[in-house]
Amino acid sequence: MAVVPLQTDEDASAEARAVFNEIRERRGTDYVNNFWRALAHDPEQLRAVWDRIQIVMAPGALDPLVKELIYIAVSTANNCGYCVHSHTASARAKGMTPAMHAELLQVIALASQTNALATGLGVPVDEVFDVTATTSRPVR
Amino acid sequence: MAVVPLQTDEDASAEARAVFNEIRERRGTDYVNNFWRALAHDPEQLRAVWDRIQIVMAPGALDPLVKELIYIAVSTANNCGYCVHSHTASARAKGMTPAMHAELLQVIALASQTNALATGLGVPVDEVFDVTATTSRPVR
Amino acid sequence: MAVVPLQTDEDASAEARAVFNEIRERRGTDYVNNFWRALAHDPEQLRAVWDRIQIVMAPGALDPLVKELIYIAVSTANNCGYCVHSHTASARAKGMTPAMHAELLQVIALASQTNALATGLGVPVDEVFDVTATTSRPVR
Amino acid sequence: MAVVPLQTDEDASAEARAVFNEIRERRGTDYVNNFWRALAHDPEQLRAVWDRIQIVMAPGALDPLVKELIYIAVSTANNCGYCVHSHTASARAKGMTPAMHAELLQVIALASQTNALATGLGVPVDEVFDVTATTSRPVR
Amino acid sequence: MAVVPLQTDEDASAEARAVFNEIRERRGTDYVNNFWRALAHDPEQLRAVWDRIQIVMAPGALDPLVKELIYIAVSTANNCGYCVHSHTASARAKGMTPAMHAELLQVIALASQTNALATGLGVPVDEVFDVTATTSRPVR
Amino acid sequence: MAVVPLQTDEDASAEARAVFNEIRERRGTDYVNNFWRALAHDPEQLRAVWDRIQIVMAPGALDPLVKELIYIAVSTANNCGYCVHSHTASARAKGMTPAMHAELLQVIALASQTNALATGLGVPVDEVFDVTATTSRPVR
Repeated sequence: MAVVPLQTDEDASAEARAVFNEIRERRGTDYVNNFWRALAHDPEQLRAVWDRIQIVMAPGALDPLVKELIYIAVSTANNCGYCVHSHTASARAKGMTPAMHAELLQVIALASQTNALATGLGVPVDEVFDVTATTSRPVR
Repeated sequence: MAVVPLQTDEDASAEARAVFNEIRERRGTDYVNNFWRALAHDPEQLRAVWDRIQIVMAPGALDPLVKELIYIAVSTANNCGYCVHSHTASARAKGMTPAMHAELLQVIALASQTNALATGLGVPVDEVFDVTATTSRPVR
Repeated sequence: MAVVPLQTDEDASAEARAVFNEIRERRGTDYVNNFWRALAHDPEQLRAVWDRIQIVMAPGALDPLVKELIYIAVSTANNCGYCVHSHTASARAKGMTPAMHAELLQVIALASQTNALATGLGVPVDEVFDVTATTSRPVR
Repeated sequence: MAVVPLQTDEDASAEARAVFNEIRERRGTDYVNNFWRALAHDPEQLRAVWDRIQIVMAPGALDPLVKELIYIAVSTANNCGYCVHSHTASARAKGMTPAMHAELLQVIALASQTNALATGLGVPVDEVFDVTATTSRPVR
Repeated sequence: MAVVPLQTDEDASAEARAVFNEIRERRGTDYVNNFWRALAHDPEQLRAVWDRIQIVMAPGALDPLVKELIYIAVSTANNCGYCVHSHTASARAKGMTPAMHAELLQVIALASQTNALATGLGVPVDEVFDVTATTSRPVR
Repeated sequence: MAVVPLQTDEDASAEARAVFNEIRERRGTDYVNNFWRALAHDPEQLRAVWDRIQIVMAPGALDPLVKELIYIAVSTANNCGYCVHSHTASARAKGMTPAMHAELLQVIALASQTNALATGLGVPVDEVFDVTATTSRPVR
């Protein structure tokens, strides 16, 4: 099921096709996955999202694989089935082992559990966790 | 605001106080944060959650700091304010730098954006992401 | 903090004040809680929500207290702090004991945990759970 | 997959069939979509939901198409795939163009991103946004 | 679709197979549903979740059927399709009638509606709902 | 409470201060709200989010006020209190009347209710809503 047609290379505008080709080149595969083919109906948004991903997911203070694990965690908590599937595949491609995957799911499950408890108990935030109360220096 | 009273050491049952003391010992501080004081109204659940956290958050295939980053990601996606505050503090205590924090938030923000797009477009999962279709071997 | 002013009895329209008075009569208290005072800015919606609550929360196949527990569960999963606070108070007024409250939170925490695992693993629904596949008879 | 059988006109009770027929008349089509056929197992709820939709989605201070866009936005944020599909179809029937759809998704994606940032940063609500602090006049 | 292969009894480790057999014995059926077969890739987590379910879902201050209704409520609010399907089946097996199911959905729908209103209006929690303000005695 | 300090103009880097000044100029007020002051700890992300907002929220196929209503809808469904407060203020500044606000909340509440019903009933998406099944033409 889809809300918009998945654009083939023939359907796509020149701007969208240019992004498709960057995806191919970056990943070393001819395959362009459905997310990009659906997003191609709005070439400007397609370009903005693709460009932002290159910036955000690049190596930096965090390792690219760690970033993929965080991506899976958010997608699971947001219950985005597509995103869980595609980013689990990405994480594997970047070196996630079965043991790492298992531990990732353990942390996600634990956090979901304690999130529910904190909300259900209406736990007030401790003063010690409030950065504004203790310092006005910038975090960076 | 809280849904249950936050138990002081005097209020708490012997079972709950035993967990409080383990928390103090493990963390090297006398401070027991509100989550545990709220949870103390159910000593069995308090014990089960505390014990599970020790197992799941211990070093393994993933680094303890990476696990805290994943915890923050889930808590943010679940919009648990208490959890975001307490685990950001934990992550800092385990070495999260401002640059790592900034990149964490970038990934969380990006994932939230693409999660919404995948859902709003109703993107069908690509065949290539379906592990059941291609193999029946166990992942571990 | 509030997005709209909380209407006092003087602020409220005649239609809204009529609902305020029904709330007082039904609950045997003069106190009208903030939810209704905020909703009073739209008297038609105020009336519709109040009337629907009387129908849905009345005794039926399920006990009114069981209905309150379900309400708390939904409110916790939706992370609605106001709703968790107000319906925990309602449940107590209807007889929820501390032991029942503790078990409620245990189930909510467990369900949140397994929900995350089912999503993170992308578990396909078993054929045996599909009612449409096995029968065309109405459920009621 | 479904949790309850989808009731055919033959399965449905007289009360449910009456709603089916109102749906047909209102929409000028013989087709009754699955949501209503699933809801038909509880004719009282079916009637209440259908009647409320007629009131809420009617022209008023907001245009019916604008209301459909809001409906899609909520359904996307709640990750209700069925609702995204059905209300995107409704919005198209009411005149949503591809350009409007693209901009709708842009806003949804942007809001999801900044929502995550506000939560992840634990941003306190500014005093200036608190209506209760500055006025006690009713909003309507 | 699945993110990990569903382990057959042959694929599964001895630890996982032991849990499969406990599931069969407890339920009096040879069928082991997909959730457990997916979770089997991490035998330690499989064991922990299965054991916790036995404790939490056992009869106590709340009836086992009431616990299943709460489980469905959380799963619906979290939009976990798999969980809604499997626990609706469990609830039926424990005696949920169509009338009870209908009322459950009514409460879930009502709570979702008022949750959205409380959030959209930014309703501040009433002082009277704050347990910490009025008492320091333990809730249990 | 906040997870990071809110940067004053003195704390902020030159890049962040430049964005603060653009915010002031665009809005014709000296006030810079907390979201931007919290985000200032990551000047690159601050710049990216601010620039994207100017593009997405500008007049286009949808009216700027309609875009604000959609923003409030997403923020409510995601339960982001800060975002609900700040964008309700923005919508008022762009002309949202109390009657429009009331209808917005009616639609949000209705959608939240039917979202829960569609999920709780596990309603399968109708074939007629699947664009991929009926056409391969691009949506734009």
